[in-house]
Amino acid sequence: MSRFSNTRRLTIEWGHCDPAGIVFNPRFFEFFDWSTAMLLFAASGMTKADMMTAYGLAGAPVVATSAQFLKPCSFGDEVTIVSTVLKVGRSSFEVEHRLFRGDTLAVEGRETRVWTVADGKGGIRSEPLPERLAARLRGIA
Amino acid sequence: MSRFSNTRRLTIEWGHCDPAGIVFNPRFFEFFDWSTAMLLFAASGMTKADMMTAYGLAGAPVVATSAQFLKPCSFGDEVTIVSTVLKVGRSSFEVEHRLFRGDTLAVEGRETRVWTVADGKGGIRSEPLPERLAARLRGIA
Amino acid sequence: MSRFSNTRRLTIEWGHCDPAGIVFNPRFFEFFDWSTAMLLFAASGMTKADMMTAYGLAGAPVVATSAQFLKPCSFGDEVTIVSTVLKVGRSSFEVEHRLFRGDTLAVEGRETRVWTVADGKGGIRSEPLPERLAARLRGIA
Amino acid sequence: MSRFSNTRRLTIEWGHCDPAGIVFNPRFFEFFDWSTAMLLFAASGMTKADMMTAYGLAGAPVVATSAQFLKPCSFGDEVTIVSTVLKVGRSSFEVEHRLFRGDTLAVEGRETRVWTVADGKGGIRSEPLPERLAARLRGIA
Repeated sequence: MSRFSNTRRLTIEWGHCDPAGIVFNPRFFEFFDWSTAMLLFAASGMTKADMMTAYGLAGAPVVATSAQFLKPCSFGDEVTIVSTVLKVGRSSFEVEHRLFRGDTLAVEGRETRVWTVADGKGGIRSEPLPERLAARLRGIA
Repeated sequence: MSRFSNTRRLTIEWGHCDPAGIVFNPRFFEFFDWSTAMLLFAASGMTKADMMTAYGLAGAPVVATSAQFLKPCSFGDEVTIVSTVLKVGRSSFEVEHRLFRGDTLAVEGRETRVWTVADGKGGIRSEPLPERLAARLRGIA
Repeated sequence: MSRFSNTRRLTIEWGHCDPAGIVFNPRFFEFFDWSTAMLLFAASGMTKADMMTAYGLAGAPVVATSAQFLKPCSFGDEVTIVSTVLKVGRSSFEVEHRLFRGDTLAVEGRETRVWTVADGKGGIRSEPLPERLAARLRGIA
Repeated sequence: MSRFSNTRRLTIEWGHCDPAGIVFNPRFFEFFDWSTAMLLFAASGMTKADMMTAYGLAGAPVVATSAQFLKPCSFGDEVTIVSTVLKVGRSSFEVEHRLFRGDTLAVEGRETRVWTVADGKGGIRSEPLPERLAARLRGIA
């Protein structure tokens, strides 16, 4: 059994860091947001724009998130983010992000997202994940 | 003759600053972006959402901007941004932003924006500014 | 018993929002970061720079954080953030942030921060919170 | 004669974009800030941290910047930023950034930066650029 996972590399920039010289914590959530996007691209073989067209996806907003900041990261650091699907529900899924500086686990994050489509009234509503995508995220396709 | 002007106060936050302890320059463009929004609210008496409804406004994207960074600002600084209309064209307008730390002019910015509406094909196109708003911005109403 | 609390108001800006028209989730952590700073200012009667001088404070980095996004917020929304001390340890403390749009609780966040001082080797180390500040945060002074 | 130049690729992320679905303009200055950092790394063969140690560099703050936004960019766009040295003075230098979406020039930026060192009083002061680096930036070494 292999839950779907995607890895990306990233350089910590000067502008990601605060006066203490380390990454300003909200930036990690920016990193993780795009990491999940990349995980979905990898799983679906589609861009977000394509998913919006193909599946009527309105977005997959985060409903809950958490992170533990174990070691600081500074500008110039080359880090690796490993994003792994933890759980796939009917219309939601959970992702874990582990950010490494070399072999050191520096930040660990988790998030729950909901798959949504336009509700036809200018808003959005949750919707079951497309079957094929759900299977891919579960690691069974 | 009084060109339309709007003033707002702002506290420089820790997260606005970089490892040198001073405001990371892109943040000033964030400050100025909202300063122009507030100037338009003050001139029109409407929120952006209201202007979108009333005027079909799609947005007023910046087409050109510039800034001079004269003095650094650090977290905790209370600054004042004075935004003044420099010029109002048919479908564009120019705004000057002067950011003061006490009496010291710290940053001076300029921007040109275009008034746009939806073009009915999923894009936007420039459109003459609503007359009443243009008059207000010119300081003649 | 009254745990220390601080409230601030904030306007959601255009630049805080994403293509879905709602606040991009990392922005809430920016809001909360400064909310904790303001809570510490209110409790200590000092600015961050003053605390750095008076207490040798190097910073109070977040070691763990979490948030639940209950309702979306859009640009133009006037929101209120109520930040309350949940717990004060020897060298760490926990803060809860509740962000309201009118009476609606839109986001709920929690964070644990560690009080740190320079370790004399170019790094930082945790340090017991100044007694007077700890008492204030506990709501007993 | 070949002025020093550096090219990098970048993907426009969801979080870089605003409710109009296009890049929020301050983000371009973030992109350009790191593009200049990368240009300096390429020219010096050193990281920023290394330059801080080797040259006593405190930072190279932007003193003036400007940009023209010719075409919008949206999330998912793969863009290329070509950064070219325009001019090298005694203690300052100018860089031009051209951001392309495919063959289309989407944004054109310019910035002037000053080379600074610590002034021994907790501040910074401008300082002549290291000779070897200046020669490299001028394209004569």
